[in-house]
Amino acid sequence: MSELTPEVRLRMDLAYDGTHFSGWASQPGQRTVQQTVEHAWGLILRIPPPRLTVGGRTDAGVHARGSVAHLDVPVQGWEALPGRSGRRPEQAAWHRLTGILPADIVVRSVRMAPPGFDARFSALRRRYSYRLNDRPEWADPLRRHDTVPVGQPLDVLAMSGAGNTLLGLHDFAAFCRKRQGASTTRTLLRFDFSRAPDGVVVGTVEADAFCHSMVRALVGVAVPVGQGRRDPDWPLRVLQGRTRDPGVRVMPAHGLCLEEIVYPPDAELGARAETARALRD
Amino acid sequence: MSELTPEVRLRMDLAYDGTHFSGWASQPGQRTVQQTVEHAWGLILRIPPPRLTVGGRTDAGVHARGSVAHLDVPVQGWEALPGRSGRRPEQAAWHRLTGILPADIVVRSVRMAPPGFDARFSALRRRYSYRLNDRPEWADPLRRHDTVPVGQPLDVLAMSGAGNTLLGLHDFAAFCRKRQGASTTRTLLRFDFSRAPDGVVVGTVEADAFCHSMVRALVGVAVPVGQGRRDPDWPLRVLQGRTRDPGVRVMPAHGLCLEEIVYPPDAELGARAETARALRD
Repeated sequence: MSELTPEVRLRMDLAYDGTHFSGWASQPGQRTVQQTVEHAWGLILRIPPPRLTVGGRTDAGVHARGSVAHLDVPVQGWEALPGRSGRRPEQAAWHRLTGILPADIVVRSVRMAPPGFDARFSALRRRYSYRLNDRPEWADPLRRHDTVPVGQPLDVLAMSGAGNTLLGLHDFAAFCRKRQGASTTRTLLRFDFSRAPDGVVVGTVEADAFCHSMVRALVGVAVPVGQGRRDPDWPLRVLQGRTRDPGVRVMPAHGLCLEEIVYPPDAELGARAETARALRD
Repeated sequence: MSELTPEVRLRMDLAYDGTHFSGWASQPGQRTVQQTVEHAWGLILRIPPPRLTVGGRTDAGVHARGSVAHLDVPVQGWEALPGRSGRRPEQAAWHRLTGILPADIVVRSVRMAPPGFDARFSALRRRYSYRLNDRPEWADPLRRHDTVPVGQPLDVLAMSGAGNTLLGLHDFAAFCRKRQGASTTRTLLRFDFSRAPDGVVVGTVEADAFCHSMVRALVGVAVPVGQGRRDPDWPLRVLQGRTRDPGVRVMPAHGLCLEEIVYPPDAELGARAETARALRD
Protein backbone atom coordinates (compact mmCIF):
# COMPACT_ATOMS: atom_id res chain seq x y z
CA MET A 1 0.00 0.00 0.00
CA SER A 2 1.20 3.49 -0.78
CA GLU A 3 1.17 6.27 1.80
CA LEU A 4 -0.20 8.69 -0.73
CA THR A 5 -3.28 6.75 -1.82
CA PRO A 6 -5.10 4.97 0.98
CA GLU A 7 -6.21 1.56 -0.16
CA VAL A 8 -8.81 -1.00 0.82
CA ARG A 9 -8.23 -4.75 0.61
CA LEU A 10 -10.98 -6.71 -1.13
CA ARG A 11 -11.78 -10.42 -1.10
CA MET A 12 -13.12 -11.74 -4.39
CA ASP A 13 -14.68 -15.21 -4.75
CA LEU A 14 -14.85 -16.54 -8.29
CA ALA A 15 -15.41 -19.52 -10.56
CA TYR A 16 -14.19 -20.23 -14.06
CA ASP A 17 -14.27 -22.74 -16.88
CA GLY A 18 -10.55 -23.30 -17.51
CA THR A 19 -11.03 -24.75 -21.01
CA HIS A 20 -10.01 -21.65 -22.90
CA PHE A 21 -7.55 -20.19 -20.38
CA SER A 22 -3.80 -20.75 -20.17
CA GLY A 23 -4.29 -21.20 -16.43
CA TRP A 24 -4.62 -18.64 -13.66
CA ALA A 25 -1.27 -16.86 -13.69
CA SER A 26 -0.57 -13.98 -16.05
CA GLN A 27 1.68 -14.84 -18.98
CA PRO A 28 2.58 -12.47 -21.81
CA GLY A 29 0.48 -13.09 -24.89
CA GLN A 30 -1.73 -15.71 -23.23
CA ARG A 31 -5.36 -15.55 -22.18
CA THR A 32 -5.25 -16.13 -18.42
CA VAL A 33 -7.84 -15.75 -15.67
CA GLN A 34 -5.63 -13.38 -13.67
CA GLN A 35 -5.06 -10.94 -16.52
CA THR A 36 -8.71 -11.05 -17.58
CA VAL A 37 -9.98 -10.26 -14.09
CA GLU A 38 -7.28 -7.66 -13.35
CA HIS A 39 -8.14 -5.92 -16.61
CA ALA A 40 -11.84 -5.81 -15.65
CA TRP A 41 -10.98 -4.26 -12.26
CA GLY A 42 -8.86 -1.65 -14.01
CA LEU A 43 -11.77 -0.78 -16.28
CA ILE A 44 -14.39 -0.35 -13.56
CA LEU A 45 -12.05 1.63 -11.28
CA ARG A 46 -10.40 3.54 -14.16
CA ILE A 47 -6.94 2.69 -12.88
CA PRO A 48 -4.09 0.53 -14.17
CA PRO A 49 -5.09 -3.12 -13.57
CA PRO A 50 -4.55 -3.87 -9.86
CA ARG A 51 -2.63 -6.99 -8.88
CA LEU A 52 -4.62 -10.06 -7.77
CA THR A 53 -3.25 -12.59 -5.27
CA VAL A 54 -4.99 -15.95 -5.43
CA GLY A 55 -5.38 -18.76 -2.90
CA GLY A 56 -5.04 -21.49 -5.53
CA ARG A 57 -3.14 -21.03 -8.78
CA THR A 58 -4.41 -23.43 -11.45
CA ASP A 59 -2.69 -24.79 -14.55
CA ALA A 60 -3.92 -24.41 -18.11
CA GLY A 61 -7.25 -26.20 -18.53
CA VAL A 62 -7.99 -26.61 -14.82
CA HIS A 63 -11.35 -25.26 -13.63
CA ALA A 64 -12.47 -23.55 -10.43
CA ARG A 65 -15.79 -23.30 -8.67
CA GLY A 66 -14.38 -21.96 -5.41
CA SER A 67 -11.39 -19.74 -6.10
CA VAL A 68 -10.57 -16.81 -3.79
CA ALA A 69 -8.32 -13.85 -4.52
CA HIS A 70 -7.51 -10.54 -2.87
CA LEU A 71 -6.56 -7.16 -4.25
CA ASP A 72 -5.85 -3.69 -2.91
CA VAL A 73 -7.64 -0.77 -4.54
CA PRO A 74 -7.69 2.98 -3.85
CA VAL A 75 -10.36 3.86 -1.27
CA GLN A 76 -11.52 6.80 -3.33
CA GLY A 77 -12.28 4.80 -6.47
CA TRP A 78 -13.89 2.04 -4.41
CA GLU A 79 -16.28 4.40 -2.66
CA ALA A 80 -17.15 6.14 -5.92
CA LEU A 81 -18.03 2.85 -7.67
CA PRO A 82 -21.79 2.89 -7.02
CA GLY A 83 -22.20 6.31 -8.64
CA ARG A 84 -25.89 7.23 -8.24
CA SER A 85 -27.05 3.60 -8.30
CA GLY A 86 -27.81 3.53 -4.58
CA ARG A 87 -25.89 0.26 -4.33
CA ARG A 88 -23.12 -0.48 -1.90
CA PRO A 89 -19.62 -0.62 -3.46
CA GLU A 90 -19.59 -4.44 -3.07
CA GLN A 91 -22.80 -4.80 -5.07
CA ALA A 92 -21.74 -2.23 -7.64
CA ALA A 93 -18.42 -4.02 -8.15
CA TRP A 94 -20.20 -7.37 -8.58
CA HIS A 95 -22.62 -5.96 -11.15
CA ARG A 96 -20.03 -4.10 -13.15
CA LEU A 97 -17.49 -6.93 -13.18
CA THR A 98 -20.22 -9.40 -14.16
CA GLY A 99 -21.19 -7.10 -17.02
CA ILE A 100 -17.62 -6.90 -18.30
CA LEU A 101 -16.21 -10.39 -17.73
CA PRO A 102 -16.57 -13.15 -20.35
CA ALA A 103 -19.06 -15.99 -19.81
CA ASP A 104 -16.36 -18.41 -18.66
CA ILE A 105 -15.67 -16.39 -15.49
CA VAL A 106 -18.32 -15.98 -12.78
CA VAL A 107 -17.89 -13.56 -9.88
CA ARG A 108 -19.45 -15.10 -6.77
CA SER A 109 -18.89 -12.10 -4.51
CA VAL A 110 -16.74 -9.06 -3.77
CA ARG A 111 -16.38 -7.85 -0.21
CA MET A 112 -14.09 -5.92 2.10
CA ALA A 113 -11.44 -8.32 3.39
CA PRO A 114 -11.26 -8.70 7.16
CA PRO A 115 -8.06 -7.33 8.75
CA GLY A 116 -5.05 -9.57 8.16
CA PHE A 117 -6.67 -11.42 5.25
CA ASP A 118 -4.34 -12.74 2.55
CA ALA A 119 -5.98 -15.00 -0.05
CA ARG A 120 -2.83 -17.08 -0.34
CA PHE A 121 -1.22 -17.08 3.08
CA SER A 122 -4.34 -17.05 5.26
CA ALA A 123 -5.73 -20.20 3.64
CA LEU A 124 -5.94 -23.25 5.88
CA ARG A 125 -6.59 -25.80 3.15
CA ARG A 126 -7.62 -26.33 -0.48
CA ARG A 127 -10.09 -28.87 -1.82
CA TYR A 128 -10.10 -30.15 -5.42
CA SER A 129 -12.37 -32.55 -7.30
CA TYR A 130 -11.43 -34.77 -10.23
CA ARG A 131 -14.03 -36.34 -12.58
CA LEU A 132 -13.35 -39.72 -14.22
CA ASN A 133 -15.65 -41.64 -16.55
CA ASP A 134 -15.12 -45.39 -16.85
CA ARG A 135 -18.22 -46.15 -18.92
CA PRO A 136 -17.58 -44.63 -22.37
CA GLU A 137 -21.07 -45.56 -23.61
CA TRP A 138 -22.61 -43.53 -20.79
CA ALA A 139 -20.44 -40.45 -21.26
CA ASP A 140 -22.39 -37.19 -21.05
CA PRO A 141 -21.23 -35.15 -24.05
CA LEU A 142 -22.18 -32.00 -22.13
CA ARG A 143 -19.61 -32.81 -19.44
CA ARG A 144 -16.70 -33.71 -21.71
CA HIS A 145 -14.98 -30.42 -20.80
CA ASP A 146 -14.58 -31.48 -17.17
CA THR A 147 -14.54 -35.28 -17.27
CA VAL A 148 -11.66 -37.57 -18.23
CA PRO A 149 -12.40 -40.96 -19.81
CA VAL A 150 -10.51 -44.00 -18.49
CA GLY A 151 -10.31 -47.30 -20.29
CA GLN A 152 -11.33 -49.88 -17.70
CA PRO A 153 -13.99 -50.05 -14.97
CA LEU A 154 -12.83 -48.44 -11.72
CA ASP A 155 -13.11 -50.03 -8.28
CA VAL A 156 -13.94 -46.96 -6.24
CA LEU A 157 -13.42 -48.62 -2.86
CA ALA A 158 -9.96 -49.85 -3.84
CA MET A 159 -9.03 -46.33 -4.95
CA SER A 160 -10.25 -44.78 -1.70
CA GLY A 161 -8.40 -47.43 0.30
CA ALA A 162 -5.17 -46.63 -1.52
CA GLY A 163 -5.84 -42.91 -1.15
CA ASN A 164 -6.18 -43.28 2.60
CA THR A 165 -2.68 -44.75 2.91
CA LEU A 166 -1.25 -41.40 1.77
CA LEU A 167 -3.00 -39.19 4.33
CA GLY A 168 -1.01 -37.13 6.78
CA LEU A 169 2.18 -35.07 6.81
CA HIS A 170 4.61 -36.39 4.20
CA ASP A 171 7.22 -35.37 1.70
CA PHE A 172 5.19 -35.54 -1.54
CA ALA A 173 8.26 -35.12 -3.79
CA ALA A 174 7.16 -38.25 -5.69
CA PHE A 175 4.06 -36.34 -6.86
CA CYS A 176 5.52 -32.86 -7.39
CA ARG A 177 7.23 -31.18 -10.26
CA LYS A 178 10.68 -30.34 -8.85
CA ARG A 179 11.36 -26.69 -8.00
CA GLN A 180 14.75 -25.67 -6.68
CA GLY A 181 14.71 -24.96 -2.96
CA ALA A 182 10.96 -25.40 -2.55
CA SER A 183 9.60 -27.71 0.11
CA THR A 184 7.46 -30.62 -1.04
CA THR A 185 6.20 -31.44 2.46
CA ARG A 186 2.43 -31.17 2.73
CA THR A 187 -0.40 -32.46 4.92
CA LEU A 188 -2.85 -34.52 2.88
CA LEU A 189 -6.20 -34.28 4.68
CA ARG A 190 -8.54 -36.15 2.36
CA PHE A 191 -8.10 -38.35 -0.71
CA ASP A 192 -11.03 -40.55 -1.69
CA PHE A 193 -13.34 -41.44 -4.56
CA SER A 194 -17.07 -41.96 -4.90
CA ARG A 195 -19.50 -42.66 -7.72
CA ALA A 196 -21.84 -39.73 -8.42
CA PRO A 197 -25.53 -40.25 -9.28
CA ASP A 198 -24.68 -39.84 -12.98
CA GLY A 199 -22.18 -42.74 -12.76
CA VAL A 200 -19.05 -40.59 -12.94
CA VAL A 201 -16.27 -41.32 -10.43
CA VAL A 202 -15.40 -38.18 -8.48
CA GLY A 203 -12.13 -37.94 -6.60
CA THR A 204 -11.79 -35.51 -3.69
CA VAL A 205 -8.36 -34.30 -2.66
CA GLU A 206 -7.78 -31.87 0.19
CA ALA A 207 -4.53 -30.63 1.70
CA ASP A 208 -3.10 -27.63 3.53
CA ALA A 209 -1.47 -26.75 0.21
CA PHE A 210 -0.35 -28.47 -2.99
CA CYS A 211 2.82 -28.35 -4.98
CA HIS A 212 2.74 -28.21 -8.75
CA SER A 213 0.84 -31.03 -10.51
CA MET A 214 0.36 -32.83 -7.17
CA VAL A 215 -3.41 -33.44 -7.41
CA ARG A 216 -3.18 -34.76 -10.95
CA ALA A 217 -0.30 -37.08 -9.99
CA LEU A 218 -2.21 -38.31 -6.93
CA VAL A 219 -5.24 -39.18 -9.06
CA GLY A 220 -2.83 -40.79 -11.52
CA VAL A 221 -1.47 -43.11 -8.82
CA ALA A 222 -4.98 -44.16 -7.73
CA VAL A 223 -6.42 -44.94 -11.19
CA PRO A 224 -4.27 -48.05 -11.89
CA VAL A 225 -5.26 -49.38 -8.45
CA GLY A 226 -8.92 -48.87 -9.37
CA GLN A 227 -8.34 -50.71 -12.64
CA GLY A 228 -6.67 -53.63 -10.85
CA ARG A 229 -3.41 -53.02 -12.70
CA ARG A 230 -1.50 -52.07 -9.54
CA ASP A 231 -1.54 -53.34 -5.96
CA PRO A 232 -3.33 -51.24 -3.33
CA ASP A 233 0.01 -50.58 -1.60
CA TRP A 234 1.71 -49.23 -4.72
CA PRO A 235 0.74 -45.57 -4.08
CA LEU A 236 2.38 -45.70 -0.64
CA ARG A 237 5.54 -47.25 -2.12
CA VAL A 238 5.64 -44.45 -4.69
CA LEU A 239 5.27 -41.86 -1.92
CA GLN A 240 8.07 -43.45 0.08
CA GLY A 241 10.33 -43.44 -3.01
CA ARG A 242 10.36 -39.62 -2.76
CA THR A 243 11.28 -39.20 -6.42
CA ARG A 244 8.97 -38.93 -9.41
CA ASP A 245 7.98 -42.37 -10.63
CA PRO A 246 7.68 -42.62 -14.43
CA GLY A 247 4.88 -45.16 -13.83
CA VAL A 248 2.65 -42.44 -12.39
CA ARG A 249 0.59 -40.67 -15.01
CA VAL A 250 -0.04 -36.99 -14.36
CA MET A 251 -3.73 -36.95 -15.29
CA PRO A 252 -5.13 -34.45 -17.83
CA ALA A 253 -5.91 -30.95 -16.58
CA HIS A 254 -9.55 -30.77 -17.63
CA GLY A 255 -10.82 -33.32 -15.06
CA LEU A 256 -9.62 -31.09 -12.22
CA CYS A 257 -11.58 -28.36 -10.45
CA LEU A 258 -10.63 -26.17 -7.47
CA GLU A 259 -13.76 -26.51 -5.32
CA GLU A 260 -12.98 -24.65 -2.12
CA ILE A 261 -10.36 -22.69 -0.22
CA VAL A 262 -10.93 -22.72 3.52
CA TYR A 263 -9.90 -19.81 5.78
CA PRO A 264 -9.85 -19.60 9.58
CA PRO A 265 -12.19 -17.34 11.56
CA ASP A 266 -11.41 -13.65 11.04
CA ALA A 267 -9.60 -13.29 14.37
CA GLU A 268 -7.01 -15.89 13.35
CA LEU A 269 -6.33 -14.62 9.82
CA GLY A 270 -3.23 -12.60 10.59
CA ALA A 271 -1.59 -15.29 12.72
CA ARG A 272 -2.30 -17.93 10.07
CA ALA A 273 -0.72 -15.79 7.35
CA GLU A 274 2.42 -15.31 9.48
CA THR A 275 2.79 -19.06 9.99
CA ALA A 276 2.19 -19.92 6.33
CA ARG A 277 4.62 -17.27 5.11
CA ALA A 278 7.31 -18.57 7.46
CA LEU A 279 6.76 -22.14 6.18
CA ARG A 280 6.95 -21.20 2.50
CA ASP A 281 9.83 -18.73 2.66
CA MET B 1 -35.92 -52.14 -48.06
CA SER B 2 -34.85 -53.30 -51.47
CA GLU B 3 -35.53 -56.83 -52.72
CA LEU B 4 -32.04 -57.12 -54.11
CA THR B 5 -30.08 -56.31 -50.94
CA PRO B 6 -31.47 -57.84 -47.77
CA GLU B 7 -31.27 -55.34 -44.93
CA VAL B 8 -31.23 -55.39 -41.16
CA ARG B 9 -32.87 -52.70 -39.03
CA LEU B 10 -30.69 -51.29 -36.24
CA ARG B 11 -31.57 -49.31 -33.15
CA MET B 12 -29.01 -46.70 -32.18
CA ASP B 13 -29.07 -44.86 -28.83
CA LEU B 14 -27.08 -41.66 -28.70
CA ALA B 15 -26.33 -38.44 -26.84
CA TYR B 16 -25.01 -35.13 -28.08
CA ASP B 17 -24.00 -31.66 -27.03
CA GLY B 18 -26.16 -29.50 -29.31
CA THR B 19 -24.03 -26.35 -28.87
CA HIS B 20 -22.24 -26.58 -32.19
CA PHE B 21 -24.96 -28.32 -34.21
CA SER B 22 -27.70 -26.73 -36.31
CA GLY B 23 -30.07 -29.24 -34.73
CA TRP B 24 -30.78 -32.86 -35.55
CA ALA B 25 -32.22 -32.70 -39.05
CA SER B 26 -30.00 -32.59 -42.13
CA GLN B 27 -29.77 -29.19 -43.80
CA PRO B 28 -27.56 -28.36 -46.77
CA GLY B 29 -24.36 -26.64 -45.72
CA GLN B 30 -25.06 -26.96 -41.98
CA ARG B 31 -23.41 -29.14 -39.35
CA THR B 32 -26.23 -31.34 -38.07
CA VAL B 33 -26.29 -34.44 -35.88
CA GLN B 34 -28.17 -36.48 -38.48
CA GLN B 35 -25.68 -35.81 -41.30
CA THR B 36 -22.69 -36.34 -39.03
CA VAL B 37 -23.93 -39.74 -37.82
CA GLU B 38 -25.17 -40.87 -41.25
CA HIS B 39 -21.78 -40.00 -42.70
CA ALA B 40 -20.02 -42.09 -40.04
CA TRP B 41 -22.26 -45.08 -40.82
CA GLY B 42 -21.47 -44.71 -44.50
CA LEU B 43 -17.75 -44.74 -43.71
CA ILE B 44 -17.75 -47.86 -41.53
CA LEU B 45 -20.03 -49.81 -43.91
CA ARG B 46 -18.44 -48.37 -47.08
CA ILE B 47 -21.84 -47.48 -48.51
CA PRO B 48 -23.59 -44.19 -49.27
CA PRO B 49 -24.72 -42.72 -45.92
CA PRO B 50 -27.84 -44.63 -44.81
CA ARG B 51 -30.91 -42.66 -43.72
CA LEU B 52 -31.53 -42.26 -39.96
CA THR B 53 -35.03 -41.93 -38.50
CA VAL B 54 -35.07 -40.37 -35.05
CA GLY B 55 -37.57 -40.54 -32.19
CA GLY B 56 -37.05 -36.89 -31.21
CA ARG B 57 -35.90 -34.22 -33.64
CA THR B 58 -34.20 -31.37 -31.82
CA ASP B 59 -33.71 -27.74 -32.83
CA ALA B 60 -30.39 -25.95 -33.18
CA GLY B 61 -28.64 -25.76 -29.80
CA VAL B 62 -30.83 -28.36 -28.06
CA HIS B 63 -28.98 -31.26 -26.41
CA ALA B 64 -29.79 -34.95 -26.02
CA ARG B 65 -28.76 -37.55 -23.49
CA GLY B 66 -31.36 -40.14 -24.54
CA SER B 67 -31.98 -39.92 -28.28
CA VAL B 68 -32.95 -43.04 -30.25
CA ALA B 69 -32.78 -43.53 -34.01
CA HIS B 70 -33.17 -46.44 -36.41
CA LEU B 71 -31.57 -47.23 -39.75
CA ASP B 72 -31.63 -50.05 -42.28
CA VAL B 73 -28.29 -51.38 -43.50
CA PRO B 74 -27.32 -54.21 -45.87
CA VAL B 75 -27.02 -57.52 -44.02
CA GLN B 76 -23.78 -58.34 -45.78
CA GLY B 77 -21.94 -55.19 -44.71
CA TRP B 78 -23.34 -55.52 -41.18
CA GLU B 79 -22.10 -59.06 -40.74
CA ALA B 80 -18.70 -58.18 -42.20
CA LEU B 81 -18.20 -55.27 -39.76
CA PRO B 82 -16.21 -57.13 -37.07
CA GLY B 83 -13.58 -58.27 -39.58
CA ARG B 84 -11.18 -60.46 -37.61
CA SER B 85 -11.73 -58.60 -34.34
CA GLY B 86 -13.78 -61.42 -32.80
CA ARG B 87 -16.40 -58.87 -31.79
CA ARG B 88 -20.08 -59.08 -32.54
CA PRO B 89 -21.30 -56.63 -35.21
CA GLU B 90 -23.03 -54.53 -32.50
CA GLN B 91 -19.76 -54.08 -30.58
CA ALA B 92 -17.75 -53.51 -33.74
CA ALA B 93 -20.19 -50.81 -34.88
CA TRP B 94 -20.04 -49.10 -31.48
CA HIS B 95 -16.23 -49.09 -31.46
CA ARG B 96 -15.84 -47.89 -35.02
CA LEU B 97 -18.50 -45.19 -34.79
CA THR B 98 -17.02 -43.99 -31.48
CA GLY B 99 -13.62 -43.79 -33.16
CA ILE B 100 -14.97 -41.69 -36.03
CA LEU B 101 -17.56 -39.42 -34.44
CA PRO B 102 -16.59 -36.03 -32.97
CA ALA B 103 -16.44 -35.58 -29.19
CA ASP B 104 -19.84 -33.87 -29.05
CA ILE B 105 -21.66 -37.06 -30.10
CA VAL B 106 -21.64 -40.16 -27.88
CA VAL B 107 -22.95 -43.52 -29.11
CA ARG B 108 -24.64 -45.30 -26.20
CA SER B 109 -25.39 -48.53 -28.07
CA VAL B 110 -26.10 -50.12 -31.42
CA ARG B 111 -28.29 -53.23 -31.57
CA MET B 112 -30.58 -55.16 -33.88
CA ALA B 113 -34.03 -53.61 -33.68
CA PRO B 114 -36.82 -55.92 -32.56
CA PRO B 115 -39.42 -56.69 -35.25
CA GLY B 116 -41.79 -53.80 -35.89
CA PHE B 117 -39.48 -51.21 -34.29
CA ASP B 118 -39.65 -47.68 -35.64
CA ALA B 119 -37.70 -45.07 -33.64
CA ARG B 120 -40.29 -42.42 -34.42
CA PHE B 121 -43.62 -44.20 -34.62
CA SER B 122 -43.09 -46.89 -31.98
CA ALA B 123 -42.31 -44.31 -29.28
CA LEU B 124 -44.83 -44.04 -26.45
CA ARG B 125 -43.52 -40.81 -24.96
CA ARG B 126 -40.63 -38.36 -24.84
CA ARG B 127 -39.09 -36.73 -21.76
CA TYR B 128 -37.13 -33.46 -21.79
CA SER B 129 -35.32 -31.50 -19.08
CA TYR B 130 -34.77 -27.76 -18.92
CA ARG B 131 -32.12 -26.12 -16.70
CA LEU B 132 -32.70 -22.64 -15.24
CA ASN B 133 -30.39 -20.69 -12.96
CA ASP B 134 -31.92 -17.96 -10.80
CA ARG B 135 -28.81 -17.21 -8.71
CA PRO B 136 -26.30 -15.52 -11.04
CA GLU B 137 -23.60 -15.38 -8.38
CA TRP B 138 -23.76 -19.18 -8.01
CA ALA B 139 -23.69 -19.95 -11.73
CA ASP B 140 -21.39 -22.84 -12.61
CA PRO B 141 -19.32 -21.60 -15.56
CA LEU B 142 -18.86 -25.23 -16.61
CA ARG B 143 -22.62 -25.64 -17.10
CA ARG B 144 -23.26 -22.42 -19.03
CA HIS B 145 -23.76 -24.43 -22.25
CA ASP B 146 -26.87 -26.16 -20.86
CA THR B 147 -28.23 -23.72 -18.28
CA VAL B 148 -30.27 -20.58 -18.88
CA PRO B 149 -30.00 -17.66 -16.44
CA VAL B 150 -33.24 -15.99 -15.30
CA GLY B 151 -33.38 -12.63 -13.63
CA GLN B 152 -35.45 -13.20 -10.47
CA PRO B 153 -35.65 -15.99 -7.87
CA LEU B 154 -37.98 -18.78 -8.94
CA ASP B 155 -40.73 -20.27 -6.76
CA VAL B 156 -40.42 -23.91 -7.80
CA LEU B 157 -43.66 -25.01 -6.12
CA ALA B 158 -45.66 -22.31 -7.88
CA MET B 159 -44.18 -23.38 -11.23
CA SER B 160 -45.01 -27.03 -10.63
CA GLY B 161 -48.54 -26.09 -9.54
CA ALA B 162 -49.08 -24.13 -12.75
CA GLY B 163 -47.52 -26.95 -14.76
CA ASN B 164 -49.96 -29.44 -13.31
CA THR B 165 -52.95 -27.44 -14.59
CA LEU B 166 -51.82 -28.20 -18.17
CA LEU B 167 -51.60 -32.00 -17.84
CA GLY B 168 -53.75 -34.25 -19.98
CA LEU B 169 -55.05 -34.36 -23.56
CA HIS B 170 -55.34 -30.83 -24.95
CA ASP B 171 -54.92 -28.78 -28.06
CA PHE B 172 -51.51 -27.17 -27.42
CA ALA B 173 -51.79 -24.74 -30.35
CA ALA B 174 -50.98 -21.89 -27.95
CA PHE B 175 -47.50 -23.40 -27.46
CA CYS B 176 -46.78 -24.65 -31.00
CA ARG B 177 -45.32 -23.07 -34.05
CA LYS B 178 -48.15 -23.30 -36.60
CA ARG B 179 -47.78 -25.90 -39.35
CA GLN B 180 -50.48 -26.19 -42.01
CA GLY B 181 -52.68 -29.25 -41.55
CA ALA B 182 -50.72 -30.63 -38.57
CA SER B 183 -52.53 -31.53 -35.39
CA THR B 184 -51.47 -29.72 -32.22
CA THR B 185 -53.32 -32.10 -29.90
CA ARG B 186 -51.01 -33.85 -27.47
CA THR B 187 -51.14 -35.60 -24.12
CA LEU B 188 -48.98 -33.83 -21.54
CA LEU B 189 -47.96 -36.46 -18.98
CA ARG B 190 -45.61 -34.55 -16.72
CA PHE B 191 -44.65 -30.90 -16.28
CA ASP B 192 -42.95 -29.94 -13.04
CA PHE B 193 -39.88 -28.26 -11.58
CA SER B 194 -37.46 -29.08 -8.79
CA ARG B 195 -34.27 -27.61 -7.38
CA ALA B 196 -31.23 -29.80 -8.01
CA PRO B 197 -28.50 -30.25 -5.36
CA ASP B 198 -26.39 -27.62 -7.17
CA GLY B 199 -29.20 -25.05 -6.81
CA VAL B 200 -30.27 -25.10 -10.45
CA VAL B 201 -34.01 -25.35 -11.18
CA VAL B 202 -34.70 -28.32 -13.44
CA GLY B 203 -37.98 -28.57 -15.34
CA THR B 204 -39.23 -31.97 -16.50
CA VAL B 205 -41.66 -32.16 -19.40
CA GLU B 206 -43.04 -35.43 -20.72
CA ALA B 207 -45.67 -36.05 -23.40
CA ASP B 208 -46.67 -38.65 -25.97
CA ALA B 209 -45.16 -36.28 -28.53
CA PHE B 210 -44.36 -32.60 -28.92
CA CYS B 211 -45.02 -30.11 -31.66
CA HIS B 212 -42.35 -27.64 -32.66
CA SER B 213 -41.01 -25.34 -29.88
CA MET B 214 -43.61 -26.73 -27.46
CA VAL B 215 -41.29 -27.58 -24.56
CA ARG B 216 -39.54 -24.23 -24.71
CA ALA B 217 -42.89 -22.37 -24.80
CA LEU B 218 -44.19 -24.46 -21.87
CA VAL B 219 -41.14 -23.55 -19.78
CA GLY B 220 -41.64 -19.96 -20.94
CA VAL B 221 -45.19 -19.88 -19.55
CA ALA B 222 -44.08 -21.30 -16.19
CA VAL B 223 -41.12 -18.96 -15.54
CA PRO B 224 -43.17 -15.75 -15.03
CA VAL B 225 -45.36 -17.66 -12.56
CA GLY B 226 -42.22 -18.70 -10.68
CA GLN B 227 -41.06 -15.07 -10.64
CA GLY B 228 -44.42 -13.89 -9.28
CA ARG B 229 -45.03 -11.78 -12.39
CA ARG B 230 -48.04 -13.83 -13.53
CA ASP B 231 -50.89 -15.57 -11.70
CA PRO B 232 -50.74 -19.34 -11.28
CA ASP B 233 -53.80 -19.71 -13.55
CA TRP B 234 -52.26 -17.77 -16.42
CA PRO B 235 -50.72 -20.83 -18.14
CA LEU B 236 -54.13 -22.53 -18.27
CA ARG B 237 -55.72 -19.38 -19.70
CA VAL B 238 -53.00 -19.29 -22.38
CA LEU B 239 -53.67 -22.96 -23.21
CA GLN B 240 -57.39 -22.31 -23.49
CA GLY B 241 -56.75 -19.35 -25.80
CA ARG B 242 -55.51 -21.88 -28.40
CA THR B 243 -53.48 -19.25 -30.25
CA ARG B 244 -49.90 -18.21 -29.62
CA ASP B 245 -49.72 -15.59 -26.91
CA PRO B 246 -47.06 -12.93 -27.50
CA GLY B 247 -46.62 -12.80 -23.71
CA VAL B 248 -45.17 -16.30 -23.72
CA ARG B 249 -41.41 -16.36 -24.23
CA VAL B 250 -40.07 -19.32 -26.17
CA MET B 251 -37.09 -20.07 -23.96
CA PRO B 252 -33.54 -20.38 -25.36
CA ALA B 253 -32.58 -23.70 -26.93
CA HIS B 254 -29.50 -24.42 -24.86
CA GLY B 255 -31.37 -25.10 -21.59
CA LEU B 256 -33.22 -27.99 -23.21
CA CYS B 257 -32.15 -31.64 -23.32
CA LEU B 258 -33.94 -34.70 -24.69
CA GLU B 259 -33.53 -37.14 -21.81
CA GLU B 260 -35.49 -40.23 -22.78
CA ILE B 261 -37.70 -41.79 -25.43
CA VAL B 262 -39.86 -44.58 -24.04
CA TYR B 263 -40.94 -47.55 -26.17
CA PRO B 264 -43.45 -50.31 -25.37
CA PRO B 265 -42.44 -53.93 -24.84
CA ASP B 266 -41.21 -55.58 -28.03
CA ALA B 267 -44.47 -57.47 -28.64
CA GLU B 268 -46.42 -54.19 -28.86
CA LEU B 269 -44.00 -52.28 -31.12
CA GLY B 270 -45.76 -52.95 -34.40
CA ALA B 271 -49.23 -52.14 -33.10
CA ARG B 272 -47.97 -48.92 -31.50
CA ALA B 273 -46.35 -47.80 -34.74
CA GLU B 274 -49.62 -48.41 -36.65
CA THR B 275 -51.59 -46.30 -34.17
CA ALA B 276 -49.06 -43.46 -34.14
CA ARG B 277 -48.80 -43.37 -37.93
CA ALA B 278 -52.58 -43.18 -38.23
CA LEU B 279 -52.70 -40.30 -35.73
CA ARG B 280 -49.98 -38.25 -37.43
CA ASP B 281 -50.97 -38.85 -41.06
